[in-house]
This record gives sequence, C-alpha cells and structure tokens, in this order.
Amino acid sequence: MGKLEDALEIIKRGSDEILLEEGLIEKLKANKPLVIKAGFDPTAPDLHLGHTVLINKLRQFQDLGHDIHFLIGDFTGMIGDPTGKNITRKPLTKEQVLENAKTYKDQVFKILDEEKTTVVFNSEWMGKMDAADLIKLAANQTVARMLERDDFSKRYSSGQPIAIHEFLYPMIQGYDSVVIKADVELGGTDQKFNLLMGRELQKTHGQTPQVILTMPILEGLDGVQKMSKSLNNYIGVSDAPDDMFGKIMSISDELMWRYFELLSFRPMIEIEQFKVDIEIGTNPRDIKFILAKEIITRFHDEAAAEQSQQNFIDRFKKGKIPDDIEEFEMQSTEGSLGIAYIIKDSGMTQSTGEAIRMIKQGAVKIDGEKIADTKLAIEAGTTKIYQVGKRKFAKVTVA
Amino acid sequence: MGKLEDALEIIKRGSDEILLEEGLIEKLKANKPLVIKAGFDPTAPDLHLGHTVLINKLRQFQDLGHDIHFLIGDFTGMIGDPTGKNITRKPLTKEQVLENAKTYKDQVFKILDEEKTTVVFNSEWMGKMDAADLIKLAANQTVARMLERDDFSKRYSSGQPIAIHEFLYPMIQGYDSVVIKADVELGGTDQKFNLLMGRELQKTHGQTPQVILTMPILEGLDGVQKMSKSLNNYIGVSDAPDDMFGKIMSISDELMWRYFELLSFRPMIEIEQFKVDIEIGTNPRDIKFILAKEIITRFHDEAAAEQSQQNFIDRFKKGKIPDDIEEFEMQSTEGSLGIAYIIKDSGMTQSTGEAIRMIKQGAVKIDGEKIADTKLAIEAGTTKIYQVGKRKFAKVTVA
Repeated sequence: MGKLEDALEIIKRGSDEILLEEGLIEKLKANKPLVIKAGFDPTAPDLHLGHTVLINKLRQFQDLGHDIHFLIGDFTGMIGDPTGKNITRKPLTKEQVLENAKTYKDQVFKILDEEKTTVVFNSEWMGKMDAADLIKLAANQTVARMLERDDFSKRYSSGQPIAIHEFLYPMIQGYDSVVIKADVELGGTDQKFNLLMGRELQKTHGQTPQVILTMPILEGLDGVQKMSKSLNNYIGVSDAPDDMFGKIMSISDELMWRYFELLSFRPMIEIEQFKVDIEIGTNPRDIKFILAKEIITRFHDEAAAEQSQQNFIDRFKKGKIPDDIEEFEMQSTEGSLGIAYIIKDSGMTQSTGEAIRMIKQGAVKIDGEKIADTKLAIEAGTTKIYQVGKRKFAKVTVA
Repeated sequence: MGKLEDALEIIKRGSDEILLEEGLIEKLKANKPLVIKAGFDPTAPDLHLGHTVLINKLRQFQDLGHDIHFLIGDFTGMIGDPTGKNITRKPLTKEQVLENAKTYKDQVFKILDEEKTTVVFNSEWMGKMDAADLIKLAANQTVARMLERDDFSKRYSSGQPIAIHEFLYPMIQGYDSVVIKADVELGGTDQKFNLLMGRELQKTHGQTPQVILTMPILEGLDGVQKMSKSLNNYIGVSDAPDDMFGKIMSISDELMWRYFELLSFRPMIEIEQFKVDIEIGTNPRDIKFILAKEIITRFHDEAAAEQSQQNFIDRFKKGKIPDDIEEFEMQSTEGSLGIAYIIKDSGMTQSTGEAIRMIKQGAVKIDGEKIADTKLAIEAGTTKIYQVGKRKFAKVTVA
C-alpha cells in the first residue's frame, strides 16, 4: 500500500479540496488508469502561470499513469451569449475554436505529454443532442439546487437577472463527465458547484460518481491578489526568459514556497530541504534561482534558463546595464529638462507624479548613481543612462 | 365600424380577460383572417363541456372568418415526465399521440368546422430543434420572471422541488406562437402566464405580439366547483342524449344563464329575451329545454335532442316509469327487508345512511307513492318499483 500512499500524497499536494477522498482511494486501489477530466474555455487561450496550477496537477496524474482528458468546452462557446448582453462573448466559429485550441495545446503541451493526452471537444456530443434530450437532462436538477450556487444566489437575491439558459450550462458540464465517464474532475475552487453537478448526473446515469479535486487560485506577483492579466501581476507562459526570471526573482520569500508547491514538480521533500538550507545560511535568492530556472526550462529550455539567470546576475549583481536598452532624444526647454519629465517621457513611469515618488523612495539612478533631488535639471547636450527600480532603463539624450 | 363592434362583442362574450384589447382592435381593423391559436395536451382526450368553453370561442372566431390553429402539444407529451416522479405522465409514442389526436378531433369537430381548421403538432418544429437552439430560446427569459408564475412561486417558497426543465415548457409553448405567427392565443385563466410568454417571445423575434384571450373555468352541475371528471359534476361530450338532457335539466336556473353564455351559440340578445320571458311567466324549465336541445344537437343530432326531451317529459312530467328499468331479487331476513337496505343494495344510494336521508327528504317513492318511514319493512313475496330522486329506478322482488 506504500505506492497508494505516495500517489495520494502527490495528488493531494497543493489541492484545496477532494470530494470524496474515500472515493479516490477506492478508484486508485483498482490499479487501472483513471479518466481524469479538466474542462477549458475555448476563448482567451493566452495562459499565465495561474492557469497552469491545474495543468500541473493533470501532469502529476499523467505521471502516475492516468488518462488525461483535456476537454475544450466549445459547444457553449459556439453559442456565445444568446442574450446579446455580453458583447465580448460573441459566438465562436468552428475555425476560431480550432485555432484557439491549437494555441492552447501549444502552451499546455509544455506541461503535459501530448502523446498521453486526449483532447476532446464537447461539441462532439452536445452538437448532436436534440432539444428533447436537453429537456431530459434539465429534468435532473431543481431550480432550488441551482440557486444555491454562490453567484446565482447573490444575483437572484440582489435582483440581477439570471437567464434561464445559464442554468443549463452547469448541467452540460456535468453531462460531459457522463459522456467521458470521468473518474476524477479537476477545477478551480470557484468551479466546485459545477464539478458536483457531474457527480450527480453520473449517479442518475448509473455511473460511479467522479471524485472532484479543486485547486486553489494562484496569487500574483504581489502575493495578495489572484494572478491576472488585468491586475498586471502575472507571468505569462509565453513571456521571454529574462522577463520570467526577473518577475520570479521579484516575489517575496513567502510566496516563493507557495509557487514551489503549486508550480514546481520537485518532490516536496526537496522543497522542505531548501527551507532547511535557508535556515542554516543559504541565500534565499539562490533557492529562487532554482525555481526560476525550473519554470523557464519548462516553457523555453534549459539553455534559456541558464542564460536568463546569467543576464539577471549580470544586470543586478554586477550592476551592469543591459545591452538592449531603449534610447530617446528629448528637446530641452531653456537649456535643460526636469528629471521627472525625462523619466515620465521615456515611459518608465506613468506620470511625473509617480517619477517624483520614485525619486523620493531612492529608486531612481542616473548612470548608476542614486539621486534624491526631485527637481534636478538635466542640461542640454548630455546623454545619460536613467534607471527606475530594478528593471527599467532608458538612455536619454537631452538636445 | 359597426361590423368591428359586432365582432368585438362576440369575441368578448364570456371571456375573462383580453390583453391587450387595443391590440385586438388593431388586428381586427386589418380586415384579414387572423391566426387564432389554442394549444391542447395530447393526453386525456375525453372532453366534457368544461373543455368546450374554449373550443366554442374558437368556433366564434371561425364564424368571424379567422384561421383556427388547433395545436396539439405532442412534443412534450412524447417526453413525458423525465424526472420519473409522475408515473401517470409516461412518454407517449407517436402512435398514441395520433390515436389521441383522432379522438380529440372526433369530438372537437362537432363544434369546429373541420374544413376550416388547421390541426398542427408542435413536434413538427420542436422535434427538429437541437440543444443549441433550445439554449438560445431559454436565454430569452429570466429565472426571476419564471418564478413569478403563481404555481412556481408557491412551490418555490414552500420548498417543493421545481425541476429545471419545467421552466422550458412555457418557453416552448411561447415559441409555438412564434412559429405559427399567432395573432391571438386562447387559454384558460390558469394559462395566462404561459400565454404571455408567447407575447414576449414574439417581440424578441420581431413579430407583433399576439393578443391573449382567457376564458373562465366552467362550473360543474353543482354550480360551485369547476366541472371535472373526478368531482363527478360533469357532462361528457360523448354522454348519451338522455344523460345529457337529464344533467342539464338538473342545474339551477342561475347556472343555466352561465351555461347559455359559455356553451350556447345563440346571440346574447335572444338569451336576454329568455330572461324577460321568464319574468313574465314562462316556465324556466322550458328555457332549459332550449339549452339542452342545442347542446344535444351539437354532440348528437336534432332527432336525438327531440327524443331525449320527449323521454324526459315522459319520465318526469307524466310520471311514467322508464322501460329499461333494472330488476333485482333480494333475500328477506325473517320474512321482510328494510327499505334502506333495498335502496342501497339496488345501487340507488351509496349507503343505507344516504337512503335514510333521501327518505327523510321525501325523495323516495314506492310504486309512485312517496314514503316517509325510514324503517319501513317490505314483506317477502312482493315486487315493487322503487324510485330515488327523479332519475333512479329499480324493480325489486323480495324473496
């Protein structure tokens, strides 16, 4: 039973909730490849590390010998938003779905083994379903149960409209589990209700209900809010190696452990050892290097990972200025130009106000020298390297 | 405009509500045949006069030159009750639907002109609808609006389950109006919500919304509760002429006017004249004869109507005992048998208690003589005619 316990430990790593764990143990004991399902939206296939938390868990299942079903929910995507209220949810064509799926796969197969992954589109079966069958499917659930879902409940009680077809979508997701005979379905914690729908529908279809496993939402670089594009606290899986490296190096030590748990494939025992290493004197930065290199190797390659580490060391440890620095020429007024304007106009801050704050915080350097004077006037005819924070540089000639 | 006003008067006769009357006037003004829709359940095609209130209104529209669409909602009938909870709602086969439809038509075309009536089955279009289209249809309505429906609202607040597919059925009924481009839809007062759904869906499909016209629920013979089989206060459209006649003659004078309004095709002006006739001395019974004969002529023929009136007169006015009286032989105990037992055992009352009450009310006759003694002992070796109320007779030999 040692093997079962090991498998269970890997599966549980970083997970939020497993329902029911006994069911999972029962299924694992059968010692046969399980059907592991995860559903993905066919829109917006531009992934960041937050999205990969779930995919990493799929990879762990895959390494344990199970069958990964990567399900693209294109059926509803091709319907779009039938109320016409959400103009950003236009119906996708089959071509767009396939194109998005390709982008998805390009990114996902940097984590999953393509050979061992079954990609399915639910339009395969839902596209053939007729209205009568959908009615029969809808009969499996009650309005009251549906209104228990957190977001529905809030919208209903606050008087925000819920269109009736929205009740059908979780049922379709659940029905997908029936069709592919899922043993385990993975999802974010916000997906729990929909995942349970799969359990219920499988029961009414005479199947052993799937185990549901929820993964937490990954925090962004700030360590507080969830990683998201709109909050600009993300690491995209397509980011350049140097960007990835710089961003990972910028996180707190605490967040580093969270990322190790959810983003690294190193055994937890090694990660625990890193903690010990730091306690007895290792520089946390060196441990962060290990994390950064693992992730960059995954999405680029080992050479790129090594190079980006070297670039990082060159730039920040040796204080060397990067090669690809952007250059500007600015026109002086009355023979000089204010430092705040230079910083703002070269795009290193959003406003002169922010530039002034950065100077006050000691985050601005000229040719490697920290400055403190927020009203410093730079004389015409000079070319200098300006730096804001650790990673923003500009070479500015005041004419 | 006289013609429009006449049409409006006929349409409004006996109706419960018209929404919106202005819309109806607008449509009538176009002076073209309107599409008049009424939907019927494909189950239980055994009609009673209560069901004919609506069909009579269809007939009036037909006489005004409009196109009647008699819609049989077989699509949902063929689904049955998918929750499996209502075992009386088993899915119907296509054959059963057609068989029921035939019975329906046999009965309905005693009122409507078959030549001028379009019978449609909604499985024609709903059977071709796929799941995606049903989702788009469902998007047209909100959960909150659906929960406003009286029965849903009561069930929801009392914690009784509402299965999600139940929200789809009113939408399908509404969509039927879109498909047949209904100008007016008729229904019972309890159907108002579903009829309004047709209006809303027609609007979203760019059609002028249908006018809805609700007809009241007809009272049964008791004049209080609604006419229904289970309350045994009904007149079936397939009842024998004598039964129809007897039942109609048994209603109160007040209910007679209600039946005239909702079941007769005589102009209201004639009916008003009948009221005047009674005021100046006509026997209400003679006016009831007119109603009974009209209805029997409709469902049988004029000869049968005349004959049943004659039979009634023979039986009750002349006190003559009918020819087809049932005969019984009963065994005496100690040389005689109690009157209450005889009445009960010959099936003329449900219990001896009821027999005793009938005697007390003076409703029991032996050989045409009213009796008052509830404990009257009938001697063995006699054969007598026993009568309870106006229409129950039995010939009983006490042995």
